[in-house]
Amino acid sequence: MSMSEAKKKTGGLAGVVAGESAICTCGLGNGLNYYGYAIEDLANHAEFEEIAFLLQYAQLPNSKELEEYKNKIIAQRELSENLKTILKAIPKETHPMNLMQTAVAALGALEAEKEDFSNQDEKIIRLLGILPSVLCYWHHFVHFGKEIDFNSNQKSIAGYFLEKLQEQDPKEDFIKAMQCSLILYAEHEFNASTFTARTCASTKSDIFSAVAAAIGALRGPLHGGANEAAMGLIESFSSVEEAIEGVNRKLENKELLMGFGHRVYGLGGDPRNALIKVWSKHLGGETLIFKVSEAIENLMKEKKPNLPPNADFYSASAYHFMGIPTAYFTPIFIMSRVSGWCAHIKEQRANNKLIRPSSEYIGPSPRKFIKIQDR
Amino acid sequence: MSMSEAKKKTGGLAGVVAGESAICTCGLGNGLNYYGYAIEDLANHAEFEEIAFLLQYAQLPNSKELEEYKNKIIAQRELSENLKTILKAIPKETHPMNLMQTAVAALGALEAEKEDFSNQDEKIIRLLGILPSVLCYWHHFVHFGKEIDFNSNQKSIAGYFLEKLQEQDPKEDFIKAMQCSLILYAEHEFNASTFTARTCASTKSDIFSAVAAAIGALRGPLHGGANEAAMGLIESFSSVEEAIEGVNRKLENKELLMGFGHRVYGLGGDPRNALIKVWSKHLGGETLIFKVSEAIENLMKEKKPNLPPNADFYSASAYHFMGIPTAYFTPIFIMSRVSGWCAHIKEQRANNKLIRPSSEYIGPSPRKFIKIQDR
Ligand SMILES: CC(C)(COP(=O)(O)OP(=O)(O)OC[C@H]1O[C@@H](n2cnc3c(N)ncnc32)[C@H](O)[C@@H]1OP(=O)(O)O)[C@@H](O)C(=O)NCCC(=O)NCCS
Ligand SMILES: CC(C)(COP(=O)(O)OP(=O)(O)OC[C@H]1O[C@@H](n2cnc3c(N)ncnc32)[C@H](O)[C@@H]1OP(=O)(O)O)[C@@H](O)C(=O)NCCC(=O)NCCS
Repeated sequence: MSMSEAKKKTGGLAGVVAGESAICTCGLGNGLNYYGYAIEDLANHAEFEEIAFLLQYAQLPNSKELEEYKNKIIAQRELSENLKTILKAIPKETHPMNLMQTAVAALGALEAEKEDFSNQDEKIIRLLGILPSVLCYWHHFVHFGKEIDFNSNQKSIAGYFLEKLQEQDPKEDFIKAMQCSLILYAEHEFNASTFTARTCASTKSDIFSAVAAAIGALRGPLHGGANEAAMGLIESFSSVEEAIEGVNRKLENKELLMGFGHRVYGLGGDPRNALIKVWSKHLGGETLIFKVSEAIENLMKEKKPNLPPNADFYSASAYHFMGIPTAYFTPIFIMSRVSGWCAHIKEQRANNKLIRPSSEYIGPSPRKFIKIQDR
Repeated sequence: MSMSEAKKKTGGLAGVVAGESAICTCGLGNGLNYYGYAIEDLANHAEFEEIAFLLQYAQLPNSKELEEYKNKIIAQRELSENLKTILKAIPKETHPMNLMQTAVAALGALEAEKEDFSNQDEKIIRLLGILPSVLCYWHHFVHFGKEIDFNSNQKSIAGYFLEKLQEQDPKEDFIKAMQCSLILYAEHEFNASTFTARTCASTKSDIFSAVAAAIGALRGPLHGGANEAAMGLIESFSSVEEAIEGVNRKLENKELLMGFGHRVYGLGGDPRNALIKVWSKHLGGETLIFKVSEAIENLMKEKKPNLPPNADFYSASAYHFMGIPTAYFTPIFIMSRVSGWCAHIKEQRANNKLIRPSSEYIGPSPRKFIKIQDR
């Protein structure tokens, strides 16, 4: 390995332990666990609010606790008039991730957390309740000039979001698929956005500042933005043959294939992929989109076994089959991952130490200053 | 050293090299340098725009370049109507750091950077130009119901900000002191907010998302918020004797003294402190605020020689003597540090690697999932 390769491998804090955490394991050889529970069990037998509760309070709720928790979230769906004014000022050309970051920053301005963080749990529930409303309110306003209300018979975040986005009773299958995807996206250890949230929280900043920061990191195509980018890739092909040819060409040109590869998973791959693929297949197994997806997956397995598909790859087609616009894929990721971010913010606060690394200096040696008139 | 002490020392990425950078040295034994130039030279012989240029383009400007650069910044002072609408929806009780984060996130929504980052330099200049306008526009609107314009004869950011905030021609001394403080605050290696900006940028997110994230980190009292907190400490005493007694009591109670201590500076202390102290003394040397400040500094020197005052301690009183409300101290820090953040975002992008560390797992072992009806 050359010097520069060695440097590259150790760049980006790859493999560097940046702190302790009790929340999640991934890539440690025992799969993806939230507080010790296997992701397969959670994705197949729970609903998202059970997972949000688990992440917020470090234990699974019983039926009564879950019902109370869901009712608290439901009570937090309304937008204030000031927040509506702000959302209406953001035009439809905006990338919805910038919209979401603006909304969460504005919540910090309009509904501040207490300086001693004593109401952090209320604020977490506020975020869980309001984020679907933010996106749906903005969507209907900028596209149809319509101001929706926030009444609904849907008791889950998954059902509520689908109903409000599409203004119809969502199919049971769509709700289930959405539950699964929200559970898979909820938490993932020290990923870039979560680590951003922890770094913010480590200065003793407020929870909205930290969540808005995390949204900024999630937006990028190397992180959450990959689900949107994966959809773009899949949709760009009009046949399986074209897809195989196109992906082969991209591999030859050393282009990134969005939805493949992961910092912490090795050859075993990302356990979330198989779980969301079931739903993608169930909802759209007969479509060209699914066939193209599977062809790309198989080709990559053959050509790049060390770059298995990650959670984003089949999330993209699953959302597509539910009729969700591609631009909203990453905002949905927020609605879920906010539960993980907030768990990490709470954990960081409970045993805080400022996160402040150092750099290796590669710049000019100390040099003499020359005043402007002599330059 | 006990186990837990050892852990604490290595927490928060203290001393961990998180990447390479050519921008700044601090705490390496040769003082604080920006691109090799000593902070003493820069603070005493340059104006802030020279430093912003240096950070943006890795070299000092000549007179012509500086004039062009300043004119470009001046041309970016205006707020769009949509941004005004958003600012007017944020009430006066808001912490101005949440206001500033909202404004920068909204700029990402209203004036998006190109997806290929080809206009990043324009966006940096936009941020330098508009941030003082954002704070001053909001200030006059929420406190006096007045919408200010952005015309000014002041060619520097320092002079423009003071004029617009106070609606009068600023004293030359105030402008000079402000220039000095903006230069001192401009850049500081991998501090928490800069590292936040780099982590965001490492996912290939846009520059506004990353700067909004950095603002979220700067807000905390362990970081930028310390200047505001230091002012609170100093102002809480009505005599030098009371200050000495109060600080002694705080030290006994092991309370944090805001404006003291730093992750990277050892016994030699923070070189920025002496530079800004000169201005604080010049502007208010005869006042109780200054005398209390100096008494606290001397007491800390005696009692806690390993916790020397940092840049925030005398910045607080210097701003106070200029008549700036305490709540705006950290927003001024943004107007300056945005130059450092953007330098790091550019550097991160030029040689990108996703920033994604790992955690040491301290949570429950894998455990059996129990369905909700059996809990
Ligand atoms: C996620 C990701 C950033 C992690 O990568 P990392 O740990 O930083 O590793 P690198 O990006 O340095 O990748 C190592 C090598 O594999 C290649 N590689 C990684 N992911 C790739 C992909 N999706 N397609 C093609 N090549 C890829 C890199 O180009 C690099 O090649 P090189 O050594 O010849 O330069 C990366 O796999 C990626 O960019 N994937 C696509 C985006 C995505 O799906 N993100 C969502 C993750 S949940
Ligand atoms: C800046 C700061 C976060 C860096 O600290 P760090 O590298 O993380 O080190 P720690 O906070 O773990 O401090 C080490 C010890 O010094 C003490 N200490 C550090 N700064 C202190 C301060 N300002 N006042 C009193 N005690 C302080 C800590 O309590 C700790 O004591 P312990 O070992 O008995 O627990 C810290 O000095 C601080 O909180 N300062 C006050 C806020 C401030 O001015 N921030 C602006 C920095 S530019």
